[in-house]
Amino acid sequence: MKVTHKGVTLIMQVTMVKNRMSTKIQKFKQGVAAEPADFRSRCAIARSLDLIGDKWTLLIVRDLMWHGKETFQALQNSAEHIPSNILSSRLKRLIEFGIVEKTPYQDRPIRYRYAITATGRSLEPILLSLMQWGHGNLGGGYFDPATGQTTP
Amino acid sequence: MKVTHKGVTLIMQVTMVKNRMSTKIQKFKQGVAAEPADFRSRCAIARSLDLIGDKWTLLIVRDLMWHGKETFQALQNSAEHIPSNILSSRLKRLIEFGIVEKTPYQDRPIRYRYAITATGRSLEPILLSLMQWGHGNLGGGYFDPATGQTTP
Repeated sequence: MKVTHKGVTLIMQVTMVKNRMSTKIQKFKQGVAAEPADFRSRCAIARSLDLIGDKWTLLIVRDLMWHGKETFQALQNSAEHIPSNILSSRLKRLIEFGIVEKTPYQDRPIRYRYAITATGRSLEPILLSLMQWGHGNLGGGYFDPATGQTTP
Repeated sequence: MKVTHKGVTLIMQVTMVKNRMSTKIQKFKQGVAAEPADFRSRCAIARSLDLIGDKWTLLIVRDLMWHGKETFQALQNSAEHIPSNILSSRLKRLIEFGIVEKTPYQDRPIRYRYAITATGRSLEPILLSLMQWGHGNLGGGYFDPATGQTTP
C-alpha cells in the first residue's frame, strides 16, 4: 500500500478496505465455523490461551488500552523490554484477529500508529483479573485505569 | 523422601514439613521482597504473566480445580494433549509457588496425587474471564463450574 502526502483521502480508503475485510473474530461471531487449525480444543479457556497465552500479548494490549502508547517504538520502550521480533509477530496476529488496528501516519519511511479495537477492549476483564491476582499474590504494582495511577 | 507402607504416619510427617516451608507466594504475602529474578517488572499483570502466561499452565489449573483430575496421567489425557515434559515442568513450578500441592499415594513406583491449593483457587476469576472471552469471541465451549456441564 502506497501512502503519499495526499494523506487524508488515502487514509479514508484504507479504512473502507479494512471495514470490508472480516477479522477472524468477526467471522467467528458471524457463525462461521472456527478454523480447527487455529485452536487445540473446543474449550473456551484453551482457545483464549491459543491467542493470548504467552508472556507478551496482554502487555501490548495493556500499553495500547491504558498507557496511551501508539507506536512500535513506544511499545518497545515499556519496562519489560519486549524483543522487536516478538512485538512484530504479536502485533500481526492481534491485527489478524481484529484486536488491534494499524493506520499509516507517515510516509518515507512508512510508519504506523497502532490502536486497540472495540473487540480488543473486551479483553479488559482479563487484564483486571490478572492485575488483581498479581497484586494480591506476587507483590505487583496495581494500576488504576480510572485515575492512571499505579499503587506500589 | 522414602515412603513405606506405614503410609498414614509418613504422610502426616510430609504435611508437617510442607507447612514449615514457605512457598514463594507465602513469602511475598509475608512482605518478603519479591525476588527480582522471578519477575520482569513491577507491573502486577506482567508478574502474573511471568508465572501463568503460557498456553498450558491455566489448563492444568482448570483440570485440577474443575474437572476432578488428580494424577499426572489424567492431566495428560485432556483434549489438548499436553506434552509430558511441559506438564512435569509446569507442575513443579506451580508447586514451588504454592498453587498446587502433591501427596504420595503409592509406593514402588512412587506416585503422586496433585491438588489445587487455596491460593490456586484464587485463580478462578482469571479462568472465568478467559472462558467468557473465548466463548464470546472465539466460539469456544463454556463450562459451568456450578453444574459441571459444558455448553457448546
